[in-house]
Amino acid sequence: MSYRPHPADTGFLLFDVLHAPRQLAALEGLADADQPLMAQVLEEAGKFVAEVVAPLNRQGDEVGCRWEAGTVTTPPGFREAYRAFVAAGWPALACAEADGGQGLPWVLEGVLYEWLSAANHGWTMAPGLLHGAYECLKHHGSDALKACYLGQIASGESLATMCLTEPQAGSDLGLVRTQAVPTDVDTEHRISGTKIFISGGEHDLTDNILHLVLARLPGAPAGPKGLSLFLVPKILPDGRRNGVACERIEEKMGLHGSPTCVMRFDAATGWPIGAPGAGLNAMFVMMNAARLHVALQGIGLLDAAWQKADAYAHERRQMRAPGLPPASRGNASADLLVEHPAMRRLLDVQRAWIDGGRLLAYRTGLLLDAARHHPDSRRRDEAQRWCSLVTPVLKAAWTQQAFLGASECLQVFGGHGYVREWGIEQIVRDARVSMIYEGTNEIQAIDLLLRKVLPDGGQALGALLVDLRPALDAGRDFDAEVLRRLAELRYLTTTLCAACTAEAADPALPHAVADDYLRAVALVLLGWAWAQIAAKSAAEDPRWQAPALAFRTRVLPELDMRLALIRQRMAAPRHAATT
Amino acid sequence: MSYRPHPADTGFLLFDVLHAPRQLAALEGLADADQPLMAQVLEEAGKFVAEVVAPLNRQGDEVGCRWEAGTVTTPPGFREAYRAFVAAGWPALACAEADGGQGLPWVLEGVLYEWLSAANHGWTMAPGLLHGAYECLKHHGSDALKACYLGQIASGESLATMCLTEPQAGSDLGLVRTQAVPTDVDTEHRISGTKIFISGGEHDLTDNILHLVLARLPGAPAGPKGLSLFLVPKILPDGRRNGVACERIEEKMGLHGSPTCVMRFDAATGWPIGAPGAGLNAMFVMMNAARLHVALQGIGLLDAAWQKADAYAHERRQMRAPGLPPASRGNASADLLVEHPAMRRLLDVQRAWIDGGRLLAYRTGLLLDAARHHPDSRRRDEAQRWCSLVTPVLKAAWTQQAFLGASECLQVFGGHGYVREWGIEQIVRDARVSMIYEGTNEIQAIDLLLRKVLPDGGQALGALLVDLRPALDAGRDFDAEVLRRLAELRYLTTTLCAACTAEAADPALPHAVADDYLRAVALVLLGWAWAQIAAKSAAEDPRWQAPALAFRTRVLPELDMRLALIRQRMAAPRHAATT
Repeated sequence: MSYRPHPADTGFLLFDVLHAPRQLAALEGLADADQPLMAQVLEEAGKFVAEVVAPLNRQGDEVGCRWEAGTVTTPPGFREAYRAFVAAGWPALACAEADGGQGLPWVLEGVLYEWLSAANHGWTMAPGLLHGAYECLKHHGSDALKACYLGQIASGESLATMCLTEPQAGSDLGLVRTQAVPTDVDTEHRISGTKIFISGGEHDLTDNILHLVLARLPGAPAGPKGLSLFLVPKILPDGRRNGVACERIEEKMGLHGSPTCVMRFDAATGWPIGAPGAGLNAMFVMMNAARLHVALQGIGLLDAAWQKADAYAHERRQMRAPGLPPASRGNASADLLVEHPAMRRLLDVQRAWIDGGRLLAYRTGLLLDAARHHPDSRRRDEAQRWCSLVTPVLKAAWTQQAFLGASECLQVFGGHGYVREWGIEQIVRDARVSMIYEGTNEIQAIDLLLRKVLPDGGQALGALLVDLRPALDAGRDFDAEVLRRLAELRYLTTTLCAACTAEAADPALPHAVADDYLRAVALVLLGWAWAQIAAKSAAEDPRWQAPALAFRTRVLPELDMRLALIRQRMAAPRHAATT
Repeated sequence: MSYRPHPADTGFLLFDVLHAPRQLAALEGLADADQPLMAQVLEEAGKFVAEVVAPLNRQGDEVGCRWEAGTVTTPPGFREAYRAFVAAGWPALACAEADGGQGLPWVLEGVLYEWLSAANHGWTMAPGLLHGAYECLKHHGSDALKACYLGQIASGESLATMCLTEPQAGSDLGLVRTQAVPTDVDTEHRISGTKIFISGGEHDLTDNILHLVLARLPGAPAGPKGLSLFLVPKILPDGRRNGVACERIEEKMGLHGSPTCVMRFDAATGWPIGAPGAGLNAMFVMMNAARLHVALQGIGLLDAAWQKADAYAHERRQMRAPGLPPASRGNASADLLVEHPAMRRLLDVQRAWIDGGRLLAYRTGLLLDAARHHPDSRRRDEAQRWCSLVTPVLKAAWTQQAFLGASECLQVFGGHGYVREWGIEQIVRDARVSMIYEGTNEIQAIDLLLRKVLPDGGQALGALLVDLRPALDAGRDFDAEVLRRLAELRYLTTTLCAACTAEAADPALPHAVADDYLRAVALVLLGWAWAQIAAKSAAEDPRWQAPALAFRTRVLPELDMRLALIRQRMAAPRHAATT
């Protein structure tokens, strides 16, 4: 069974709960994205994903990518599917019309990639990297570079990479050593160094591959401020091969459909993107979008795991379930797994994460659109504030849940889940990487607390929480529970900021509670999401009410534990709190 | 880096905390197991594991087992290592001297298998199945069968399998369909059917393989009471091949070093073990020991993951850690991962599970010995009570932690954890199966609450908790925290039993809270273990005090959440509690 998107579910969240068309109507250049158009795009995207991309997932894992003498062959069918993707114009969905794109809102691209990742995470890695390169080049590239490359990136004619990591420089990009030496010719530089973990560094999907490479100019200061960004094509404009070689691809736990390359640059020709020393800056223009992509990967993979487990639980019979009326059993000698409370609960809890996560990610996508296109600068800033605070939360919490929840879904299959046949173990292996790349989940937690909450004493986060309140109604039990936690988190944020900045503060304190803090924010946001979904869906509709109940009774209680853990660490004497 | 056992750590837990020799001295036939003898066995076992078994782990995963035309070839070196294992007498360590064994306590076998599993889970599956077969045959086999096979099982000359699962019968063995038809010859039967997920069903480690097969006699009643057990050898006593064939081996997420076989029995010759209809009974004689083996696998695998992550965290430098005195940094441009609070905590939390789990598992092992060998029947019953209640808790909670904790250890490596090179992702994949086999973790939770706690109204569990109190000292903060939770769990157990047996009780209630209940028991037991370890180790020794602190501040708080979840479910109106 391969993954099938359900556009109607997404439509309910986008249209009935979030009123996306109304929000987009206020944005410059996106007013055409009305409900019928968006619904049609979703319908077509769903078909493409289910019919073209999903059926290749299994082979992508089993055959995988092959490296031979510097060339990489992708799994059977990948190339054809990518050609079809380009031919249908999907890469350019959210690119500007001036660049040959369709000028549709980012949120639709987000949904498309959620579904693509769910259907075939490995294949999706290749086009997934286009969008960041497009944004980066569009905002920081010279006119000459843009004239040469922007159109081919938008259309998907050329694919792109992000060459950041080096053997000694992972989370700490300040340690990057790759060198860029200017030449006599215009802005040409010679780039030399080795980059690792380069997704799509080499493949057979497109003729050219455009590498965005972080490197250090001669005499540049040590650390992150000495890094500059360069565009280094595999094939130079005159048709010659550049000095870029794929030395090998990694053997990985999963994601076999995506080549993870070791790339060697030997005096390769490259051109700067952005100013010297502003390399990280240029890369980070697309950081929120890229992290939101990864959060949506997590949501998609968890949905894929859920679909498999739910189908299995509706056909497999083992043992008697408690409390079933005998008449409902017919002649079967055992009951369906889905009738067993532990299995039912497990499935509903995953749906709580999937659909609540969707609501939050779609809202964030709409606000990414607003941050770019709203005519009112105050509204752009508000949108940016949400994206900046919420994106690391979505990335970390939902990729973690993708892995843990997919493993729970595997458990539904018993021993059958551990063998390849049912495809569920592939999802667990594939999902694991999303906790690591695009900034490890620990880095996301530090980003949230140390870079975004503490510096302004929790003001922005507090304001965001206050803005969530109008959508909640204290007269409804569910909403009241969320409102109470929201207030607790606000108060804790204030006291935590004070504790971290006090004169004799323990410098390790924010690092020690960052993970718990991110998790607490995630649970409050998820509570807000489910309170709204529950209020806007029919009171007896199990499609939405069952996960709402699962969230309330099984997921939300973790929040109290997280708050307690943070308070306890704040109260610990410094010398006794090495952990 | 391959796994290295640390006999001194185990010795501290066995000798200094548990006073194992004193406890064994009271047992019939085990009084010789004094501290010097046990320490010597541990030392030798540690060497064998580190030198012979651990180095084969990587190849076991990468080459794996190969099936061809019904025969199975194990990975390079596996056969030689197994021969060395037999030659050194390790299989017979805890077998009776009358059967050619060494008559040592079970607890030493437990430690041996913890280390073997940590070093090479796949290889260890093969000898791991011997011990259950030995117990089963010894207690339920006819004299003729014992004369023929008991000695070769004890010595490891022949390996054994447990043939329980069938395609339609996994957790629900009552659905088994394999047929056993009596013949005219003595007790000979003809066994026909297909069994799946048979670990070691076929291999090249030994000449003969002895299958213990659950089957149904003609006219046997449906369900578990119609099942009988048969011994079906691959090679018959007259040297002919029996009608047993390995049809294929499964492609699995991990554990590639162990062949998971589909076995077809075609009128194969077999002999009954135990009475007709008592098949499950005969199998379950070894259930506690087998489950404790799996719990120790989990503990071992988590320790293997920890060793890798700890070593990496002591050599890899990324970013500045907070609060380090500048002088401690030397010339390095970044700090060791182990100096970063999130990494330090992650490592210490895993050690809390590993060493606390060891203490509980070793104690359980000592009580397995006492349940068999104590001269006083009251003491045997007490020991049996502990084993019966605690074993499912150890199996479920520590195999779950093995998977989740190994994944946390993988996170320490960042992207390097996701590639094969460092071997950490193999541990995550291998560990996943332990949550499924020997009874899924959900089955363990149902076993604990529905079969062992509810039937006597929580009396036995309550008595066990009361027995834990004397080792705790309310004057110590740590112990006081554990004592408070212990009392809460006792009270909750009583109210839960009352709620489940009340007249209008919701039949789904115990199923819905079983997982939380098992988890709560696990955390109380772990608290008891760490309170003792902390009290018996030097107050400044980070080897034991750091994980003790991590347990107290990071792990124990989950208990309050579990108790809250159970209380909340008990309070839910029946119709509103479908999850």
